[in-house]
Amino acid sequence: MSAPAALRWVKGHGTENDFLLLTDLTRPAPPPGVVRALCDRHAGIGADGILRVVAAADDPDGAPMADRAAWFMDYRNADGSYAEMCGNGARVFARYLVDAGLATPGELPLATRGGVKTVWLEATGDVTVDMGAPAPVPVRPVVGDRAATAVSMGNPHVVVPLPAGDRGLADLAGLDLRHPPVVAPGMPGGQNVEFVVRRGPRSIALRVHERGVGETRSCGTGVCAAVVATILAGGDDGRDEPWTVDVPGGRLSVTWTTAGPVLLTGPAVLVATGEADPAWLATIAG
Amino acid sequence: MSAPAALRWVKGHGTENDFLLLTDLTRPAPPPGVVRALCDRHAGIGADGILRVVAAADDPDGAPMADRAAWFMDYRNADGSYAEMCGNGARVFARYLVDAGLATPGELPLATRGGVKTVWLEATGDVTVDMGAPAPVPVRPVVGDRAATAVSMGNPHVVVPLPAGDRGLADLAGLDLRHPPVVAPGMPGGQNVEFVVRRGPRSIALRVHERGVGETRSCGTGVCAAVVATILAGGDDGRDEPWTVDVPGGRLSVTWTTAGPVLLTGPAVLVATGEADPAWLATIAG
Repeated sequence: MSAPAALRWVKGHGTENDFLLLTDLTRPAPPPGVVRALCDRHAGIGADGILRVVAAADDPDGAPMADRAAWFMDYRNADGSYAEMCGNGARVFARYLVDAGLATPGELPLATRGGVKTVWLEATGDVTVDMGAPAPVPVRPVVGDRAATAVSMGNPHVVVPLPAGDRGLADLAGLDLRHPPVVAPGMPGGQNVEFVVRRGPRSIALRVHERGVGETRSCGTGVCAAVVATILAGGDDGRDEPWTVDVPGGRLSVTWTTAGPVLLTGPAVLVATGEADPAWLATIAG
Repeated sequence: MSAPAALRWVKGHGTENDFLLLTDLTRPAPPPGVVRALCDRHAGIGADGILRVVAAADDPDGAPMADRAAWFMDYRNADGSYAEMCGNGARVFARYLVDAGLATPGELPLATRGGVKTVWLEATGDVTVDMGAPAPVPVRPVVGDRAATAVSMGNPHVVVPLPAGDRGLADLAGLDLRHPPVVAPGMPGGQNVEFVVRRGPRSIALRVHERGVGETRSCGTGVCAAVVATILAGGDDGRDEPWTVDVPGGRLSVTWTTAGPVLLTGPAVLVATGEADPAWLATIAG
């Protein structure tokens, strides 16, 4: 038996939401067991998810978009399941394409399981992602004793405003998010919950609990939902202007355009390159 | 300014206690800020600690042992601080030396900040580490309402027996170890706490809370302390024989010799090789 080909990857993160990019354009998609093993933070390499880089035309899910996007972002959660789209991941994916010479700075369409998404590589190195338009959700949930706002960004969010300023920041720091917040009424299938503090003009801080995951350092759709809910609560003030959003993993900028789409801008950092040990990989069940 | 040299590493684990080995024999020791950045599981690569590979003669801490050990295991905790010794880390370190052709299978003395330690590379691929002799601690602590045994393995341990068999295994699975267990009287400087279930002849299962860290998947000195305490409670039965210890991260074998030293045997797995991105590394403050 010949030695298996090396599995090469690049590790990167966007506001500390971290990913392993599988960069061999000719290697088949990894089975779920390999995804889980690579993402295992103690027994493997460790990441929130996998982003496989593949020409859209070469992937069955990407091929229908190949006339509009050269590259397909094959995104998998750490548990091996498929995911449609990830705003933090799309920035890291685009950063890699440009650094590797596979795309040029500027506007870049990406094929994803959530459709073709447009990203822009800024001159600063930051990356902007068109996250699509929010959809109203006609419920008024309560979280604890606080009135909240439900917003869909393709996935369901419940945004909970805390008091503004230092008092709210202290409340935010003290939250126990080890368990899912209790939302009444909850959304079918659960929801992501953002606790938001207004810091000043077009400036918020938040923490997020993601359904099925727990508290995370950053959530791309969550920061967009938080800005949308804050603008809605303020009478539409602040559309078409950039909002600053501080999350535990860093700082993002969000603009809710009057045309509809929400634009998410933030850093994308490539940390390391490597390859899985072939002998180790041979021990992993698919 | 010339580009900084690549920082190469190998990631490996022993029963899911994971490490980045820095394998460039000529590269200076990393400053604490670089250790923290490398070990950061979201913004960096991620590990419980760093094992720098260096010829004992080439390191000021290793040089006094250079006549007895060719290699110095420069071990750092993820927070950048120095650590003396780590049983799981020593297995991974030895596995790397042999796989890289820097040492031969069989007996291998390693220089560590805790002195020269002897390891053996077994034909199976497992590695045995001489963990030294336990020291009695003349206190009888209580944890919750359970009488416990205090044992020093160079570091302080409190071993708490749970009921034997399935009832104990259910108790073990249900423990909440998110906070340090309350030990009365506690040891000066705190302690590691092992909750132990007797599964059968010379067979135990345990979970461990490490001081300053939290629950871990495995703790080399902890599994040794647990076997020592279990043997002491049983009237010295089982000395010089291998005990099987199941921890959340895998299975280890422990033999408490009548000569004194405790021998810890277990797997050592090398998972990946890689290098830090030089542009990223340049952003890290030492």
